[in-house]
Amino acid sequence: MAIQVYGDSVSGNCLKVKWILDRLKVPYDWTELDVRTGATRTPQFLAINPSGQVPAVVLEDGRALSQSNAILLYFAEDTELTPIDAYERARMYEWMFWEQYSHEPYVAVRRFHMHYLGKSEDELDPKLWERGNAALARMETGLEGRDWLAGDHLTLADIALVAYTRFAPQGGFDLAQYPRVMAWVARVEDELGIGRVA
Amino acid sequence: MAIQVYGDSVSGNCLKVKWILDRLKVPYDWTELDVRTGATRTPQFLAINPSGQVPAVVLEDGRALSQSNAILLYFAEDTELTPIDAYERARMYEWMFWEQYSHEPYVAVRRFHMHYLGKSEDELDPKLWERGNAALARMETGLEGRDWLAGDHLTLADIALVAYTRFAPQGGFDLAQYPRVMAWVARVEDELGIGRVA
Repeated sequence: MAIQVYGDSVSGNCLKVKWILDRLKVPYDWTELDVRTGATRTPQFLAINPSGQVPAVVLEDGRALSQSNAILLYFAEDTELTPIDAYERARMYEWMFWEQYSHEPYVAVRRFHMHYLGKSEDELDPKLWERGNAALARMETGLEGRDWLAGDHLTLADIALVAYTRFAPQGGFDLAQYPRVMAWVARVEDELGIGRVA
Repeated sequence: MAIQVYGDSVSGNCLKVKWILDRLKVPYDWTELDVRTGATRTPQFLAINPSGQVPAVVLEDGRALSQSNAILLYFAEDTELTPIDAYERARMYEWMFWEQYSHEPYVAVRRFHMHYLGKSEDELDPKLWERGNAALARMETGLEGRDWLAGDHLTLADIALVAYTRFAPQGGFDLAQYPRVMAWVARVEDELGIGRVA
């Protein structure tokens, strides 16, 4: 049986998994679960991921795995998407953990509230704006003199970070204020062949 | 020059780095920075970590690295603290990413507000209580029939998760409601030789 992927296509975390499997030419079946309708809280899905979060994958032998960035590492830690040099690999991990802690909770959450829940800017926690911009500014610094976040070619760090950065304008963020980030988004989108959002 | 570690000893994220270096017998100098006094926002420290977060390390060659779990992987990805089996290793990554996204922002933040900022329970966002307990319940499920979170011995997943779980009572959480978690905390503390909190 092929690998089963459970995901919501509006979620950047889920798209990361799709992109990596497509790029590595790993066959899979995709089951669409809408996080807004409680589809990730059914007993069937909680048996796959007790945390009730997508993405989750079930491997050929029936074992399950979740957390988007852990899934990326499982499929690609021994591919050219992971730097061979130990320090560059550690920088890749650094960006991936930073993404989940300091970027996704602000950039992705603000986009979800505005774009999918239809909330207006003044209904939102101002922290989302402040910390989302801080995250984008941090990336702008990190991309100074570099084309890619870690190492000298596309790595899992770029895939993890582009997932929600490319959708930042849907959360009201102005990427034109972060020109290196804007150019990097287009570079990663082109390299992944996923089309450009903006 | 020895490895330089910048950390705040009240932070579980920083203690992770201390524990791993002690266990692997890697020599280092520790510089104490109090996050409450702005010591992580000085130009000197921002030159080391532009995100202004501890822990951060400066390696012997002068290159810097931050994000606690990335630092753990840098020092221990090729040691017995990381499973050799690819699936078990991925489960370790899964717990480490989950820790930063679904555990630390609630369990650690509630403890910081109560224990270090002296806030009373009714001044706190109820989400911290609700999601902190959800995280502890998720760990209780994950430890069913197991002594360690990933694989059959101590791994980086246990080190990452014990950091704030052992201090959960300082955030008002009752670990007695999670007997497998409580036994596991003592097991990890004993294995690391760091003494017991409770």
